[in-house]
Amino acid sequence: MFDERKKRAAGWFRDLRNDICRELQRVEHDAPDDLYPGEPGRFTFEPWLRKVENGGGGTGGMLRGRVFEKCGVHISAVQGEFTEEMAARVPGASDDPRFWAAGISLICHPRNPRMPAVHMNTRYIVTTQDWFGGGADLTPVQHDQRNPETDDAKHFHAAMRAPCEAHNRDWERYRDWCDEYFHLHHRDEPRGVGGIFYDRLDSGDWESDFAFTQDVGRAFLDAYIPIARRRMMEPWTEAEREEQLILRGRYVEFNLLWDRGTTFGLKTGGNVKTILSSMPPVVKWP
Amino acid sequence: MFDERKKRAAGWFRDLRNDICRELQRVEHDAPDDLYPGEPGRFTFEPWLRKVENGGGGTGGMLRGRVFEKCGVHISAVQGEFTEEMAARVPGASDDPRFWAAGISLICHPRNPRMPAVHMNTRYIVTTQDWFGGGADLTPVQHDQRNPETDDAKHFHAAMRAPCEAHNRDWERYRDWCDEYFHLHHRDEPRGVGGIFYDRLDSGDWESDFAFTQDVGRAFLDAYIPIARRRMMEPWTEAEREEQLILRGRYVEFNLLWDRGTTFGLKTGGNVKTILSSMPPVVKWP
Repeated sequence: MFDERKKRAAGWFRDLRNDICRELQRVEHDAPDDLYPGEPGRFTFEPWLRKVENGGGGTGGMLRGRVFEKCGVHISAVQGEFTEEMAARVPGASDDPRFWAAGISLICHPRNPRMPAVHMNTRYIVTTQDWFGGGADLTPVQHDQRNPETDDAKHFHAAMRAPCEAHNRDWERYRDWCDEYFHLHHRDEPRGVGGIFYDRLDSGDWESDFAFTQDVGRAFLDAYIPIARRRMMEPWTEAEREEQLILRGRYVEFNLLWDRGTTFGLKTGGNVKTILSSMPPVVKWP
Repeated sequence: MFDERKKRAAGWFRDLRNDICRELQRVEHDAPDDLYPGEPGRFTFEPWLRKVENGGGGTGGMLRGRVFEKCGVHISAVQGEFTEEMAARVPGASDDPRFWAAGISLICHPRNPRMPAVHMNTRYIVTTQDWFGGGADLTPVQHDQRNPETDDAKHFHAAMRAPCEAHNRDWERYRDWCDEYFHLHHRDEPRGVGGIFYDRLDSGDWESDFAFTQDVGRAFLDAYIPIARRRMMEPWTEAEREEQLILRGRYVEFNLLWDRGTTFGLKTGGNVKTILSSMPPVVKWP
């Protein structure tokens, strides 16, 4: 069922992956040599297969560059059967545990502590029902940038608001959903300055939901690349670098303690290498 | 109830804390200056209180030294009432949710990558029943040291076996329990080379159980200090340091994903600073 939809969605995630990787490599290329010695980084791609027959797989893309210290852009298209416990919790799976899922996920950890980290993910899930999910959120790693009134935060929010308004989606709800999700409950601290987050999106008009999800992916580039290009030009201090390494610890804490995708994947035999590629390259808990 | 026992147990944890801190400071003092420039580190102690009236608290002890890059030795004595959900799972708490708990916990992250990290914890819990728990385990951070046949592993295991045999406890069971507990299920990898672990120890002879738990604490010093003093003399390479920083990531993954104490504490309003003091000072996920 939904074969044509699956094909189009998976094709889109691949196209978006290619566009994003091209744009990030352009930033690597355009970086000033005095601040970023060495060659511009390039993505390398590594396919992986689930360890079950006909389970599908994906392609992990990693760039370890001069601007982006570590950046992962991954696509996958997998299928299988949910466990009984999962099937009971997933829409449309209680009578038929088969699922199909495709998506793209991205995380960038820049070298320059004045440049925020960023995360983006969109996905299309099929059981006996089908729906989209996704979003993008910005994570500054300097205390004085971690408030919603900065130019970066305002620009990022405006850019992610655009596809919501163009498609008559409830932006405020998606913005609040993002804040609720990316929250470090043990510290009662937001992970970053937010963005948008949505899940189980099935408005009844698949074409419209797909077009919206495509525009969310495109909006991510409008949201992040201008911030990256502006912040890239700013020199930084050792103290700022130290602060970045410490605040990256918050990112680790969120992903391993609270992120449903990460913990679910790691506790159910997911691809450890791909899942943990979101971990920052260097972190301090002094 | 058990007032005399509580007093004696809490007093012991404090005495053991003092002995351990003294021994670790001696190692700091005796380190060769050429390998470890700078002054020997000393513990600083910071008391904390639970944010409820009469809830008790503890004292966090931290040493950031030249041999021990980061070392925490904490004691606490707390009391309160379990939530209904917890009370149903804890022995002796289903009819009366009040609890009292005291303990000591230690984690050492040495600077020298050839010196293993170590963890030790013992505790005494009181509901309408009372019991001891604890153990100690060794975590080498070089791949070629991460097997049970090394001299370090054999020495550590022999030292932790001694109190078990002196008190007629089932050492093999406690050794296996340690291996089962300190396992990174998502990687199907042991955290280190093991040691001993026991919980809910109530043999019916409190004096004997207390004496055993005291000897486990003393055995920890016999187990670790000779390893630290021997490894301390070995110079290391940049490549070994890099390997250490990466393997420390496994420690973070274990504590945030699998360690019941850490995750329970962080998800139920525990003292974040003390709980996360176990995080290594610098970590890499390259």
